Amino acid sequence: MDELACCRQRIRKFFSSTKANSLLLFNGDAAYGADPNFRYFSESTIDGSAFIAKRNGGAAFFTSSMNIARARAAGGWKAIEYGKDAYATMRKFLGSAKNIAIDARSLSAFRYASMKRKLHCRPINASEQMGQLRSFKDAGELAMIKKAVLAGRKILDGLDPSEYATEKDLHDALLIKAIEAGGSASFEPIVATGKNASFPHHHASSKRLDGIVLVDYGVKIGGYCSDLTRCYFLGACKGEKKAYESAQQIYFEIKDELPCMQNGKELAMLAAKLHEKHGLPKLIHSVGHGIGLEVHEMPHLYSRSKDKIGDGTVLAIEPAAYFKAFGVRYEDELYLKNGKAGRF
Amino acid sequence: MDELACCRQRIRKFFSSTKANSLLLFNGDAAYGADPNFRYFSESTIDGSAFIAKRNGGAAFFTSSMNIARARAAGGWKAIEYGKDAYATMRKFLGSAKNIAIDARSLSAFRYASMKRKLHCRPINASEQMGQLRSFKDAGELAMIKKAVLAGRKILDGLDPSEYATEKDLHDALLIKAIEAGGSASFEPIVATGKNASFPHHHASSKRLDGIVLVDYGVKIGGYCSDLTRCYFLGACKGEKKAYESAQQIYFEIKDELPCMQNGKELAMLAAKLHEKHGLPKLIHSVGHGIGLEVHEMPHLYSRSKDKIGDGTVLAIEPAAYFKAFGVRYEDELYLKNGKAGRF
Repeated sequence: MDELACCRQRIRKFFSSTKANSLLLFNGDAAYGADPNFRYFSESTIDGSAFIAKRNGGAAFFTSSMNIARARAAGGWKAIEYGKDAYATMRKFLGSAKNIAIDARSLSAFRYASMKRKLHCRPINASEQMGQLRSFKDAGELAMIKKAVLAGRKILDGLDPSEYATEKDLHDALLIKAIEAGGSASFEPIVATGKNASFPHHHASSKRLDGIVLVDYGVKIGGYCSDLTRCYFLGACKGEKKAYESAQQIYFEIKDELPCMQNGKELAMLAAKLHEKHGLPKLIHSVGHGIGLEVHEMPHLYSRSKDKIGDGTVLAIEPAAYFKAFGVRYEDELYLKNGKAGRF
Repeated sequence: MDELACCRQRIRKFFSSTKANSLLLFNGDAAYGADPNFRYFSESTIDGSAFIAKRNGGAAFFTSSMNIARARAAGGWKAIEYGKDAYATMRKFLGSAKNIAIDARSLSAFRYASMKRKLHCRPINASEQMGQLRSFKDAGELAMIKKAVLAGRKILDGLDPSEYATEKDLHDALLIKAIEAGGSASFEPIVATGKNASFPHHHASSKRLDGIVLVDYGVKIGGYCSDLTRCYFLGACKGEKKAYESAQQIYFEIKDELPCMQNGKELAMLAAKLHEKHGLPKLIHSVGHGIGLEVHEMPHLYSRSKDKIGDGTVLAIEPAAYFKAFGVRYEDELYLKNGKAGRF
């Protein structure tokens, strides 16, 4: 099928990075969202299912009697009903293949053990290879992330925190605005005022908005996420504004240097250098992260990260400073295309 | 601290069900919601953290430099910063304890392997014991679930699908109504019209609402979930209405029999018997499930389930029938208290 051409290409690329004969991914309970690798390689979010792709072609969903009609109606991939013994059904499809690539970062220890035993296989953890592949976005993915970033930015640009009484009121309004924009919030929005802004992952409370209002928020559209942070000021907030301007400057200086960065470590070092140059305290979290089907994905940008950066990389870059009385953070996406850094 | 008394009691009960000396739980990335067992035993949802409780008293959070200030400000449990070697820090707190209870159903295979190696321990999977403990709710939990059920039911009772054009429009309105009710949707709402209602887990599409409209929806308030299904009718829908009435009758007949049920298997058998009696096709999913911090939790109600049912059990009961042209389902919560079945 034409709409699955990108998946077939992803699968081909994946097999060039592993010695495994087959790829086996699970998608669990619908209530907890789709597994990102299951979605990436199959374009599907069908719950309670497995997806197998074989090196020499051929791929199929394995699903319950409850979902089989939907899987078949969706078309595209072959859909096979689990039957009474799901692993026996999968083994039949796999033939004699023993080296099976899995994602040990999303597979539970419980399922890993039962799969290994019942499927009689040698599971090969390929989380790293999948993460690397996903960290270089194709044109379709860049277009999806752009939609998510523009939707989120439009909401934050039009926001007037003085219209809301408490952190929780603004938090709820942000959830609703994401739905009205045709998506959903890509994570629980952070709304932190005053001292609460000194906690990077504060939970919105009933505290009245006063002084600095830090909003960390993103929109998810068609499965792809944005992640943006802005600070707003109710009152003078002289020190807060100064620190926020420094964070913004660091962001744009990182943008200028991004095309020269080879990996996560180099970017982390650059951020540390810029924080020092602008007189901001050392970062207590990394300066950003890859983003796409997940809010946080490869490349990781910590001080020992060898994760590669290059054309197709999309990063949420978030310089920040945390003090006793308040905190500031500026965050927006940057991407690399034809050797140049861009903002959506 | 007083507000943690219920957690201390849960921890005591847990240790009476296991030979482990300690309990170790992880809570991961904030973007993906809190781990239910981490929340259950600690009352906290602090991300990127571990929680250890020891049989002989003593419990602590282990968290990063990013979250340590928030963890300490929250009070209650001791909070220890990971430091450079998180597992070494945890090992120091654990003393010589080797038998450590973990939740292999939420722990990834990757983290399980690194934990086992770096913590030098014998992990004991206690997912089952934790699930059993959580399947008997205390008074505080029953009160929380009641809030979630009443909020969801009020929205569904007041719903007029003729006010919405498409499945997606109604789906989005339901997401917003949950936020306006002070919570959030406890899962991606299912809105399925006509033939789409024959797929139990249909994804809301741009299809125009016409004929039967099946809505499966719940609200999450303070971490606790509801899960409700109603069918609405635009037009005559004679066959649809008849099947829906049968599903409702089965629900109330299950309510009458619930106090006699000992375990999941007995309830599954009762449901099968009642479906036959009312001339409905065999169920293609289980007749319901436990509900609480998770939408789907123990007791499981499939045909071989030994999961116990008794005072404190809360179930979402969902008799259903799926045909070629449509499907019907009725779902609402039931609980057992003092040997009697109740509806919130």
